[in-house]
Amino acid sequence: MNQAPTVPDDPAPDEPTGTISAGKYRGLRTLADARGVFRMLAVDQRPPIFAALAAHDGRRPEQVGYDEVQWVKLLLTRVLAPASSAVLIDPIWTHPRALGVVPGSVGLLSTLEDHAFAVRGGERFSRAIEGWSVAKIKRSGAAGVKLLVWHRPDVSPENQAHQDDLVLAVGDACRAHDIPFVLELLIYPLGGENVASAEYAKAKPRLVLGSVRHYSQERFGVDLLKVEFPNDLKFVSEFSSGAFDGRRREAVHDLADTRGFLAELNAAAGVPWVMLSAGVTPREFEVQLELSAAAGASGFLAGRAVWLDALSVYPDLEAVERDLRSLSLPYLNRIAAVVEAAGPWTEHRRYRGAPTLSNDGEAWYREY
Amino acid sequence: MNQAPTVPDDPAPDEPTGTISAGKYRGLRTLADARGVFRMLAVDQRPPIFAALAAHDGRRPEQVGYDEVQWVKLLLTRVLAPASSAVLIDPIWTHPRALGVVPGSVGLLSTLEDHAFAVRGGERFSRAIEGWSVAKIKRSGAAGVKLLVWHRPDVSPENQAHQDDLVLAVGDACRAHDIPFVLELLIYPLGGENVASAEYAKAKPRLVLGSVRHYSQERFGVDLLKVEFPNDLKFVSEFSSGAFDGRRREAVHDLADTRGFLAELNAAAGVPWVMLSAGVTPREFEVQLELSAAAGASGFLAGRAVWLDALSVYPDLEAVERDLRSLSLPYLNRIAAVVEAAGPWTEHRRYRGAPTLSNDGEAWYREY
Repeated sequence: MNQAPTVPDDPAPDEPTGTISAGKYRGLRTLADARGVFRMLAVDQRPPIFAALAAHDGRRPEQVGYDEVQWVKLLLTRVLAPASSAVLIDPIWTHPRALGVVPGSVGLLSTLEDHAFAVRGGERFSRAIEGWSVAKIKRSGAAGVKLLVWHRPDVSPENQAHQDDLVLAVGDACRAHDIPFVLELLIYPLGGENVASAEYAKAKPRLVLGSVRHYSQERFGVDLLKVEFPNDLKFVSEFSSGAFDGRRREAVHDLADTRGFLAELNAAAGVPWVMLSAGVTPREFEVQLELSAAAGASGFLAGRAVWLDALSVYPDLEAVERDLRSLSLPYLNRIAAVVEAAGPWTEHRRYRGAPTLSNDGEAWYREY
Repeated sequence: MNQAPTVPDDPAPDEPTGTISAGKYRGLRTLADARGVFRMLAVDQRPPIFAALAAHDGRRPEQVGYDEVQWVKLLLTRVLAPASSAVLIDPIWTHPRALGVVPGSVGLLSTLEDHAFAVRGGERFSRAIEGWSVAKIKRSGAAGVKLLVWHRPDVSPENQAHQDDLVLAVGDACRAHDIPFVLELLIYPLGGENVASAEYAKAKPRLVLGSVRHYSQERFGVDLLKVEFPNDLKFVSEFSSGAFDGRRREAVHDLADTRGFLAELNAAAGVPWVMLSAGVTPREFEVQLELSAAAGASGFLAGRAVWLDALSVYPDLEAVERDLRSLSLPYLNRIAAVVEAAGPWTEHRRYRGAPTLSNDGEAWYREY
C-alpha cells in the first residue's frame, strides 16, 4: 500500500561470518545486561535538551548555558544510569563528569557525531564532533562508539557518498581499536515533505528499511544498529483514533502491516538492532518496544521517552529530580520488563546461536 | 626488632596531585564495586595451577596440558566471577574464552608479565609475555593492566635498573592508553634465605615496605598497588602456636608490630592498595584482610586463598565445581564482608577526598 522508493542497487545481505573480535565482544557484553539485552539510556541529546530548558522561560535554545545543560544531564544520569545496562553520553556536556555518577558496572557509550550538520539541497551531511574521535572514545574507557547518520535511500549520489564515507571511516577506526560500532539511522523529510502527514507516514517504511538494508553491509563494520520504528503508529488503524495524543488521523497501515515492516526490518538488519525513541511519548514507545521485541530487537537505546516529561517542571531542579524518581525511573523499569521478551544480541542470526571469537586459539594473544 | 635493609636513597613520597585522567578513572570504577572497594578474583596464576593439576597423579607441572589448564580456569571464572567486582585473567589460557563467562558488569583486568623470569646471581629479572602488550590489553576491552615485578630493596643496581625500566615502560604505556596500571610487588629469598624461617619472617617487613615505597614514586605511573602482607602472621605471637596450620613457630613479632607495619605500608603507598593472598590458607588470608582493611587497604585481589582448596579433588571436575560452589563461593562472600570495613579507593589521600579529573573543562574533549 505504499510506493516509496526502493533501493534496487544495494547488494544482497552479506553471509554472516558468525565471528566477533575480543574487544567488540567484551564491549557488547558490557553494554548489554546479564541476559544479553540492551537497556540503554541516552543522555547525549543536544538540541532536544536545549529546547526543553529554553521552553520554560521563552528563551531561544542557543541562549541555554553550558553549566545549565551539564547540570541537567548529570542529574538524568545520576538518577537513571543505575537502572540501565549502559548510558550513552556526549563528550561536551556529559563526559567526563558523568564518570563520577555512572556506576562501574554500567556500560559507557560515547557519541561521535556533531549535532549540527551541513545542508545542501535539503540533504543532510553528517560529521563527527571536531576534536573528538574513535581513538579518544577508546582511550577514555568507553565500551562503544555511537554515530548518528541522517539518511534516506533516495538521496543524491553526492550525499550518499558523503554519508557512506563517514560510516566507513568510523567502521574502520572501530575495527582498528576493536570497539563496538553502534550506528544510529534516522530518516528526515526532503523536498517539502511534512513529517506529520499521512503521505510521510506512508513513505516511511521504505525509507527506514532501505537505510537499514544499506548500512547492514559488512563493509561498514557496524556491530549494532540503533533504528527508528519503521512506520508511524499514530497512522496505524488500531491507534489512529488518538490512542497516543488524542488526535484522530487517517489510517495508512494496520497492525498486520506494522508487524510485516518489523519482520522486514529484522530480515534487513545484518547485525543485532535496538529501538530508539525519537521523541515519541512514553506510551507510544512502550507499544513500539513490545512489537519490536517480538520481531527480533535486542532491546532499546532511549532517552526522551524516558526522561523528557520530567523536564517539564524545569527550572525547579528538586521537582525535576522528584519526577525523575517517581515517573522516569518506574517507566525505565517498565520498559525493561517489556524487553524481557526480547532475544539476547548473541542469538542474532549473524552469530548462528552464539558468537565465536574470530581468534581464540593457543596463539591468539600473539596474533591479536 | 629487625635489622633488614632500609632504602635510604629513595626520595620522599611525591606530593599527591589529587587528579586522575578520564580513562584511568573509568577503569578503576569498573574494577571496584559500587562502593569503591576492590573485590577482585585472580585466575591468572600459572605455575600454581600447573602444580595443583599435576599433583593428583604425580605428574610434573610441565606435563599438564593446555586444554586442561584452560578448562579449569574457565570453571573457576564461571563460578566465581559473578561474585567479584573484577577478574584478573592471563592472555594465554584464560583470555579470550573467559569473555563468554565474565559478566559484562564485572571488570576485566589482564596480566602482562611472563610467569617465567630470568635469574642471575639469584636475582629475578621480570619480563612481559612475548607478543602481549598494554596496547593489546586496551584493545581487548580490559579495564586494567596488571604487572607483577619481583623485587627487594637490596638488589644489585643492575637488577634494580632492569625492574625499574620495565615498570617505567609499562607505566608510560598505561598513561598513553589511559588505562589503570595495577602493580603487584612480591619479594623473594636471596642468597640461601629460607622463606619458612624465623630470620626471613624478621627481614620481611623492611623488604616489603622498601618495595612499596620505591614503586610509589609518581614517575612509575602506578594507579593501584597489589601488595603482600608485610609480615608473616605465622610468626606473630598471637598466632604462632599453630593457629593456621597446627605448627608451632618462634614469635618474631606481635599484633601491635603487625599493625605498625601495616600503618607504615599505608603511609608508604602513594596510591590505593589491595591485598594479595600469595598462597596462604583461607583462614590466614581472612585475618590478613581484616587487619589490612583497618589499616587502609581498599580491598583484595586474591586467587589461591579463594579457590585452591577446591582443586584438591581434581580431576573429578564435577567435584571441583561442587566445592567451588559450596566452599569457594561462600568464602569469597565472607571476605567481601570483611572488606565492607575498608575505605573506597577514591578516599585514598592521593585524591584528597575525591578524585578530580585532570581535565574536565568545557574544552576537555578537544584537549584530551
